Amino acid sequence: MSEHDNLTLHTDFYEINMMATYFEKHMENRKAVFEVFFRKLPFGNGYAVFAGLEHIIQYIENLKFTDDDIDYLRQVTDYPDSFLEYLRNFEFKGNIKSAYEGDIVFANEPILQVEGSLCECQLVETAILNMVNYQTLIATKASRIRTVVGDDPLMEFGTRRAQEVSAALWGTRATIIGGFNATSNVLAGKKFGIPISGTHAHSLVESFGNDYDAFKAYAQTHHDCVFLVDTYDTLKSGMPSAIKVANEMGDKINFAGVRLDSGDMAYLSKRVREVLDNAGYPNTKIYASNDLDETTIASLKMQQAKIDVWGVGTKVITAFDQPALGAVYKMVSVEDNNGKMTDTIKISGNAEKVSTPGKKQVWRITDSKDGKSEGDYVTLADEDPRKEKSIFMFHPNYTYINKNVENFDATPLLKPIFEKGKLIYDRPNLKQIVHYAEKELASLWPEYKRELNPQKYPVDLSQKCWNNKRDIIEKIRSYIQDIKY
Amino acid sequence: MSEHDNLTLHTDFYEINMMATYFEKHMENRKAVFEVFFRKLPFGNGYAVFAGLEHIIQYIENLKFTDDDIDYLRQVTDYPDSFLEYLRNFEFKGNIKSAYEGDIVFANEPILQVEGSLCECQLVETAILNMVNYQTLIATKASRIRTVVGDDPLMEFGTRRAQEVSAALWGTRATIIGGFNATSNVLAGKKFGIPISGTHAHSLVESFGNDYDAFKAYAQTHHDCVFLVDTYDTLKSGMPSAIKVANEMGDKINFAGVRLDSGDMAYLSKRVREVLDNAGYPNTKIYASNDLDETTIASLKMQQAKIDVWGVGTKVITAFDQPALGAVYKMVSVEDNNGKMTDTIKISGNAEKVSTPGKKQVWRITDSKDGKSEGDYVTLADEDPRKEKSIFMFHPNYTYINKNVENFDATPLLKPIFEKGKLIYDRPNLKQIVHYAEKELASLWPEYKRELNPQKYPVDLSQKCWNNKRDIIEKIRSYIQDIKY
Repeated sequence: MSEHDNLTLHTDFYEINMMATYFEKHMENRKAVFEVFFRKLPFGNGYAVFAGLEHIIQYIENLKFTDDDIDYLRQVTDYPDSFLEYLRNFEFKGNIKSAYEGDIVFANEPILQVEGSLCECQLVETAILNMVNYQTLIATKASRIRTVVGDDPLMEFGTRRAQEVSAALWGTRATIIGGFNATSNVLAGKKFGIPISGTHAHSLVESFGNDYDAFKAYAQTHHDCVFLVDTYDTLKSGMPSAIKVANEMGDKINFAGVRLDSGDMAYLSKRVREVLDNAGYPNTKIYASNDLDETTIASLKMQQAKIDVWGVGTKVITAFDQPALGAVYKMVSVEDNNGKMTDTIKISGNAEKVSTPGKKQVWRITDSKDGKSEGDYVTLADEDPRKEKSIFMFHPNYTYINKNVENFDATPLLKPIFEKGKLIYDRPNLKQIVHYAEKELASLWPEYKRELNPQKYPVDLSQKCWNNKRDIIEKIRSYIQDIKY
Repeated sequence: MSEHDNLTLHTDFYEINMMATYFEKHMENRKAVFEVFFRKLPFGNGYAVFAGLEHIIQYIENLKFTDDDIDYLRQVTDYPDSFLEYLRNFEFKGNIKSAYEGDIVFANEPILQVEGSLCECQLVETAILNMVNYQTLIATKASRIRTVVGDDPLMEFGTRRAQEVSAALWGTRATIIGGFNATSNVLAGKKFGIPISGTHAHSLVESFGNDYDAFKAYAQTHHDCVFLVDTYDTLKSGMPSAIKVANEMGDKINFAGVRLDSGDMAYLSKRVREVLDNAGYPNTKIYASNDLDETTIASLKMQQAKIDVWGVGTKVITAFDQPALGAVYKMVSVEDNNGKMTDTIKISGNAEKVSTPGKKQVWRITDSKDGKSEGDYVTLADEDPRKEKSIFMFHPNYTYINKNVENFDATPLLKPIFEKGKLIYDRPNLKQIVHYAEKELASLWPEYKRELNPQKYPVDLSQKCWNNKRDIIEKIRSYIQDIKY
């Protein structure tokens, strides 16, 4: 087994050090609840697309300290044997609730929840954040690009600039969840069932010494042909060679397209379109792939560039303009000395950084007539707005922004994935996830979806949740006030 | 075997499509030479630290299409059986020369070279770039941060924000090559022999309900203690609790430090230093870890913040301000129809984007007296400046910038790693790489090493290499001129 199948040690050292303290203090079985949330949507976008769950499921299912892991820990720590034995027998027996991949999620609401013993909850923090942070970031970036591209085919071409292997593979999968159609990465294609795309590089042309011989050889050995026409000179050499080969090969090939990878895309694409149309190839597509992102694509669209198919690499696979999502994993409730669950909070001088205590649920409130979104309603886990005729929704920091909502449907965002360590979620395949993501995104008003200055989607707390938070802040404040040393 | 051991399909689809054309055109055994280089140093830095070779070696050694891979390709392509059989028997039999990990490298010089059949060279492009681009980027970012930090201990804490699993693992290793001392990631510690670091999180304090009980429990279960003091209030609660626990535990623990993770680090660190000193703990260190990078660290140093140990996460592991290095892999020479090697070039309207044709070597020229660097001298592979008494070094685009160098030593940058598919490089361990990297960096003048506006290090072409480039550009130009359709 490689370290990529078993990622049990893929965690921060402090998680295991805390487990040691809980174990030796006989607190290892105390119940706790942790929730994942982020404080700010990335890229100035109006929403995020949740992704990462599939990898988390694989990670949790393989969670087990191997003998090798235990030997390593014995070597580099002074953990007592009893704790090492505890680790050797450790199994994840907790509950995980999560948004589904493809769910639309927002800032300051729980998107994944782990409920289990203190030790279970602590161990899995790092890997869960590693997976959710990256994949949600990329699915969101991909969704922004999809917004601008409209219905054009959109390809992921970023492997060579991805941040190592798993970013290329899981990142590509996330772009598909966000709305991309295909990838250049063959392993991602095999692993996840993603359509693969790609024909040839400049090197093919260079190895034949000229465009014509290279295109001809390619056409004689492949049915679907997209010729890369910019190796030497797009209009003087690449295009005439492509047309000549297409004319010569006739029905023997599908002259699917030509690809531009450099130069002035707006200008070149229009000239290339003319050449194709004049030569009798109105259905041959123009592919473009040169450091594209939602901004350059929007600009090319504005200039009415004649580009049909978009290849996006670096900018999507690294989320170049913001390469990290800051999702955190915070304890919201823990069993105290008397066996009672106590809600917990992380205080901060900055109101927006104060976490919301208590085990929670997020309800997506939609108009029961048109199914369109009214906002998200964060409640404590024991509340159920489906039993209410009307709910009062208000901004958690600016409470004067509020509304009464009636005739609504409420759908829970956090859905059961693991129960007592068992996977109870029937995993959809990637196609089903893409279909689900499209449906979810469609239910959002367009005002939240534009890529520039979107309207802010309401994420409100229930009165009970808000009161609970206020009471706990007061309690902590007076605790700090009263400290005497 | 998992897909992470065998990454043969971790390549762009067009590489395999080109292989199909070469195979069917009976060109699969034609010799070619490809070189990796980047055009611009990242972060405005004066140099880059090469990394990625270890992963490339593992990748090449496991390069083999499995039956499963062949079945997949049969399913999704119309490749003929003969080509699929060729792939099934494919072995990498080429040569790879490369900079060593820890080598200082610059823009516009080959840092890795693959020489083999067209098919071999093409297949490995994507994975090599994926690994070199990311790891070199991170080692370079880490080295920048090391420059600012001086000799202080420097920890990598970025796993939760890394771009998925292999970025966390290989990225951490790259930070060590760049000058970091330890990581929080336990698996990286185990896999690469990196010291691991970390004690506890805010959640430990929250699960005990107060600082004192949490610190006490931690101290009773660990010898080395670094208390995180900012959960509720650093000066009112965290610090008094830490001191009280340290006093009570006395020699039973090593009160190694306190960690600050929020708030005004400059102010708090000074106050915390006073508290520690007044309580008789002058050797207890102050750890800081809150979205740090070379800029914030330089600012904290300017403000004389009393921080002893630095934990850097997001900003180093994602190379946040420039999350991709644009290294490319270009064909520089290929066997023609007559069995003769012909040098190749990728033309561009932009002078700096034109690649340099021919199989090359890079010579690091140093003063034979003090060992300090004079510049890099790029020659064709058959040149050896060690046989010359003096060399004429000149800027490849601004040729009036030039100098004659005598009394020099010339050391080749590209060193043999694989020969005819066999690994002939005796791989150093990470400690040896770190030692090598330190020595190499020390040979560079400080003017090239400052993090802001460094002096530009000369990367010059030999006269022969420059003439060859000029002649080939002329040849291509007249080829384009003469095209008639």
